Amino acid sequence: MEYEITPSEELQWRISRFQQKISENGLYGALINQNTDLFYFAGTIQRSFLFIPAEGEAVLAVGGNIQRAHEECGLKNIVPLENNKKLGAVLSDFGYHLKGKIGLEMDTLPASYYLSLQGNNPEADFTDVSEHIKQTRMIKSDYELERVRKSCQILDEVMVLAKDTIKEGMTELELDAVLTAYTRCKGHMGFFRARAYNQDMNYSHILFGSSGALSSYVKGPLGGKGTTPAIPLGAGFSVFVKNLPLIVDYGMGYRGYVSDSTRTFVIGKLPDELEKAFEVTREVMYFTESWVRPGKSPADLYNEIIKLVKGSGYIDHFMGHTPNQVPFVGHGIGLEIDEYPVIAPMFELEFAPGMVYALEPKMAFPGIGAVGIEDDFLVTDNGVERLTNSQDTLIAIEP
Amino acid sequence: MEYEITPSEELQWRISRFQQKISENGLYGALINQNTDLFYFAGTIQRSFLFIPAEGEAVLAVGGNIQRAHEECGLKNIVPLENNKKLGAVLSDFGYHLKGKIGLEMDTLPASYYLSLQGNNPEADFTDVSEHIKQTRMIKSDYELERVRKSCQILDEVMVLAKDTIKEGMTELELDAVLTAYTRCKGHMGFFRARAYNQDMNYSHILFGSSGALSSYVKGPLGGKGTTPAIPLGAGFSVFVKNLPLIVDYGMGYRGYVSDSTRTFVIGKLPDELEKAFEVTREVMYFTESWVRPGKSPADLYNEIIKLVKGSGYIDHFMGHTPNQVPFVGHGIGLEIDEYPVIAPMFELEFAPGMVYALEPKMAFPGIGAVGIEDDFLVTDNGVERLTNSQDTLIAIEP
Repeated sequence: MEYEITPSEELQWRISRFQQKISENGLYGALINQNTDLFYFAGTIQRSFLFIPAEGEAVLAVGGNIQRAHEECGLKNIVPLENNKKLGAVLSDFGYHLKGKIGLEMDTLPASYYLSLQGNNPEADFTDVSEHIKQTRMIKSDYELERVRKSCQILDEVMVLAKDTIKEGMTELELDAVLTAYTRCKGHMGFFRARAYNQDMNYSHILFGSSGALSSYVKGPLGGKGTTPAIPLGAGFSVFVKNLPLIVDYGMGYRGYVSDSTRTFVIGKLPDELEKAFEVTREVMYFTESWVRPGKSPADLYNEIIKLVKGSGYIDHFMGHTPNQVPFVGHGIGLEIDEYPVIAPMFELEFAPGMVYALEPKMAFPGIGAVGIEDDFLVTDNGVERLTNSQDTLIAIEP
Repeated sequence: MEYEITPSEELQWRISRFQQKISENGLYGALINQNTDLFYFAGTIQRSFLFIPAEGEAVLAVGGNIQRAHEECGLKNIVPLENNKKLGAVLSDFGYHLKGKIGLEMDTLPASYYLSLQGNNPEADFTDVSEHIKQTRMIKSDYELERVRKSCQILDEVMVLAKDTIKEGMTELELDAVLTAYTRCKGHMGFFRARAYNQDMNYSHILFGSSGALSSYVKGPLGGKGTTPAIPLGAGFSVFVKNLPLIVDYGMGYRGYVSDSTRTFVIGKLPDELEKAFEVTREVMYFTESWVRPGKSPADLYNEIIKLVKGSGYIDHFMGHTPNQVPFVGHGIGLEIDEYPVIAPMFELEFAPGMVYALEPKMAFPGIGAVGIEDDFLVTDNGVERLTNSQDTLIAIEP
């Protein structure tokens, strides 16, 4: 394993696709500052602003460790930035200015930071550029897909390890510890990033019995109890016993790229109703696998899935239990856990080759537990390819 | 271990101290929305706005799982919020309005979120209330201190485990995996929160040899290499060999409360120069332990420490190596890793009873490694109490 630097041509490909979007939308340029976006466009998150003009070469102005930025960033123009106030002056050396319509990541940049930028650059007409960023990052390059595939492959191994590890009397936290020790030794990058405000989360959600049916602050179908209301999410103190469902919802993080998959385990045998509900979630997954292709709509897919689940009689349990259901069945993955596309009724873009998403049909039974499945998919030229695929049935363990 | 709910009287104590500050500053009230602040004032982070009026009872308007909010929040007024646009209407049922000077967490709230709140509430004169929040949270209650103490106690155990685990041929990631499996089984909450933008981080920094002397995007003296430039921090692929320093900088997270401590290990013996530098960091720590008491100034302490280190001849190595040194020697801890007080030249408040901070004198030697120590301190009525204190010498391991 090695500490891998993003190739220069890969960065250029990303920047030029983004430039086309901001150029079409009449922006003079964009100031990139959020960690994930910096890594995507510049290959480094050493404290910086990356100015991407609508036309011309990007400039990385580094307030942090500039030696390290040089080592990690394959762009040509890398300059020191002593003080954010001098950003305009630094850019003017390259013939750029902070005037006119300039994009900012206003979905993540704190309000006070934004107001200070605006105060320091009164001639700039700052505008939110996050939608263009999300749509650029939504289509993965071959380089990115190689890393996503590897991330998915390790995740398949995690589920095999889980099957070999789970036993009666073990706690959620103990299983979490075993799986996380394994992935860390495989090079797990250490934490996950979510783009949305207040959606910080861990990458391991081990949810036994009733914990699986608890929704929480994170906008997902199953949150879990967790160890404290300060982080009410994922593994807690529950002890595994027979005949109740155990959800292992795990994410590998490999060279920046996340994967996200869920399997349902049971020591012994599930109640019939939960077994049936699990089969519905599998049906949903296989249905989408044959349905999705470029040009079709995630919103239509969402509606088709809802029709299928209504027909099964389990709609009140789907994607969380009423009244805490979430209005989506899947989400894009990449450098963040909440990327485009979203498989949701209001999502307006079409499926396109290079999109990667996690589909997570899940059913919650309050007081009992949850069942479901989650796999990662790549949209190809004429359909989809499943990237995580080990043991995709209910996984029963001998008591 | 149990999932612990914050007592109602504790929440009331916190709110009333905050109310005094905003009242003195002419605010009508404050809208709390950030996860950590919600947990501090309301005991829950289920998706909500907490309105704290300058006078009167607070109202928690819940957009997420309201059943769970009821279970976790000991405040009287808990109401559903279907849509953020209706926040004003919900508050008006309690006789409150969104007009006049109202505080927001503008240091964390994204710009687009702020602009939307302002658009929906044109009569509100929103102002940044984060300074009042930080100063309220800076003084810990007895209830909080009990949890901080427990967090520190487990962290002492981690360092003993590290001593028993470290051996030649092991990688940074492998040690990280062992320590993290241990703390997770002890109820580690799963991740750390930093308040500052882009300062997301893991809680385990295992830095061997030259990795220890690398600074990174996080504003700390030692960042480490990490596994990828996407998260260039903490453990990476380095293999432990003899006679070079190994930094274990770890944080426990217990019921919301973080602890943060660093020990320097060596298999065999350190080069003399690094041993001497380590002794200077210990001197700094013992000096501060006798110097600090209520009424004295963190800025003065910083200057005294710099004087001491200049005298030692190691100033170019202190808190990172030139040109990547950081201008502080300690930081407050609590629910976040970057709380008040900061032991830094520009920090203007005085030490006061109930403050808790991590002091982390460290020395970096580029290409070789880092040495140093970090412990957590509580400011008492007449001095300080050290909360982490196991094995505070250089820890040598037989090859």
